Amino acid sequence: MIDLNKQIAALSFPAEPAGLYEPISYTLASGGKRLRPQLALLGAQLFGGNEDEVLPVALALEVFHNFTLLHDDVMDKAAVRRGRPTVHVRWNENTAILSGDQMMIEAYRLLSRIREDKLSEVLRMFNDMATGICEGQQFDMDFEQRELVTLDEYLHMIRLKTALLLAYALRMGAYVAGADIDAQQHLFDYGIYLGLAFQIQDDLLDVYGDEKTFGKAIGGDILCGKKTYMLLTALQKADNITRNQLIDTLTSSSLSDSERITCVTAIYDKLCVRQAAEQTIADYTNQALLCLQALPDNEANSRLRDLANSLVCRIL
Amino acid sequence: MIDLNKQIAALSFPAEPAGLYEPISYTLASGGKRLRPQLALLGAQLFGGNEDEVLPVALALEVFHNFTLLHDDVMDKAAVRRGRPTVHVRWNENTAILSGDQMMIEAYRLLSRIREDKLSEVLRMFNDMATGICEGQQFDMDFEQRELVTLDEYLHMIRLKTALLLAYALRMGAYVAGADIDAQQHLFDYGIYLGLAFQIQDDLLDVYGDEKTFGKAIGGDILCGKKTYMLLTALQKADNITRNQLIDTLTSSSLSDSERITCVTAIYDKLCVRQAAEQTIADYTNQALLCLQALPDNEANSRLRDLANSLVCRIL
Repeated sequence: MIDLNKQIAALSFPAEPAGLYEPISYTLASGGKRLRPQLALLGAQLFGGNEDEVLPVALALEVFHNFTLLHDDVMDKAAVRRGRPTVHVRWNENTAILSGDQMMIEAYRLLSRIREDKLSEVLRMFNDMATGICEGQQFDMDFEQRELVTLDEYLHMIRLKTALLLAYALRMGAYVAGADIDAQQHLFDYGIYLGLAFQIQDDLLDVYGDEKTFGKAIGGDILCGKKTYMLLTALQKADNITRNQLIDTLTSSSLSDSERITCVTAIYDKLCVRQAAEQTIADYTNQALLCLQALPDNEANSRLRDLANSLVCRIL
Repeated sequence: MIDLNKQIAALSFPAEPAGLYEPISYTLASGGKRLRPQLALLGAQLFGGNEDEVLPVALALEVFHNFTLLHDDVMDKAAVRRGRPTVHVRWNENTAILSGDQMMIEAYRLLSRIREDKLSEVLRMFNDMATGICEGQQFDMDFEQRELVTLDEYLHMIRLKTALLLAYALRMGAYVAGADIDAQQHLFDYGIYLGLAFQIQDDLLDVYGDEKTFGKAIGGDILCGKKTYMLLTALQKADNITRNQLIDTLTSSSLSDSERITCVTAIYDKLCVRQAAEQTIADYTNQALLCLQALPDNEANSRLRDLANSLVCRIL
């Protein structure tokens, strides 16, 4: 398989204006799992496609994903990303806005290197994906201001914000490799289920994860009162007394950070929120695996199976 | 000619999430001259092209232009645009960032509606234009932090930030209508000269304009010490004594706004900065008109001539 880190490191930008391009190189060099471009390559491999042919799409997706992180970090006022200062902290907010804009343009530039007869459809998919992510981010910000958010609304939001990019990465790879529309749809659905399972697992690990392997401090979502799968499930399962107790615990000014995390976790324990989340992750994982059964059974399929199964293993 | 205001008003967006789409409708409804889409249509008409065929490009350019204004207003902390509160004032900064991102995606979505066999090249031009504008904005912000900026650097900056969009609008229109590469280049050059003349005229009107027709308060650039064509020309023409006097006047804390504007204008008068600017505008206008001579002599050409000539008339 193509070495994606090498390909991303090989993306070169003009030296000037340095204030525009240095933050882009900095962001792209900060690592990450390169999951999205990998999925695009796997989507193509599944149908015997040429890796080089789908590479522009894979790179465009990675650059676009990093653009969304850059702007999300400004909106969330996040100071650290992948262990390094975020762009708006290291430089300033205007730099983060403008370099982010330029990254989005670079993503479209990479995309435009695709075979001409495939460009129109790939561009249409890419635009739908990009719009979905913006809509998801807007819903996420809206939810922060709202008192009541249903689990269904939450699932719709993470579908847009997280799952859609994985699903379209796979689908674009498959499309470029010549997969028919039904096969594209199965792979797309696999990506959606995988993305949903992935995000719910992230929410679960924020409460029950191991700080060393999770990569960030445990309880972050609890401390900022984020409406995660865990919190929304707890609010749904709780009786009135427990619900008020949970809300009080989240908002009380007399608790220390560690006290708040301990108390909220105790309520989650009582309500079996962990089990509910694990069940939902397992359900989505199974749905994802079912989608793969309708697709060619080869090395790429096996890797996609492993990817889905690795999610479940990561929890237990 | 197609009614561009009607076409832009007809662009429709989903109702939800309202926080994402309402600021986009608000921005697009705020008017403006619709110069860029007009230029795309004129570029096509010049070569007998079909207006409907170039319309997606025209609309994409207008949406992209408005996106840049939206993000520029955040970066410049501008409170008013076309007589209305800017998006980050009326809503908030995060909304302005995210709705701006979505506007850029909408621009690419519109662009993707172009004839499939023209898409690849149009996309390439659009990306070059978009990157140029980001580079221009970065140079503009860099210049604010620098003590010394040369006139050449300034001209390079406004070429990117202002002129390139006009030039590519014309060129994309011509390309879609089937113009050959030489003709495209002449039209592109016309657009560059027009854009340079246009921006220098804007700088001149900030000092010597009539508040009623200029549409904004006179002296705004002087008060914020902006490195305009006027200031950079004055600094270049001044002897050491006058230069220090100019810098003192711009930075002195003891002057009122109107005193500062009066004193700086008096120095400009003494250095004949107005005449220098008028000469440069006339030179660029003539260059623009020369470019048109190599192109088909028809109604569209005549309108482009009028457009260039209207610049010179606006000053006198």
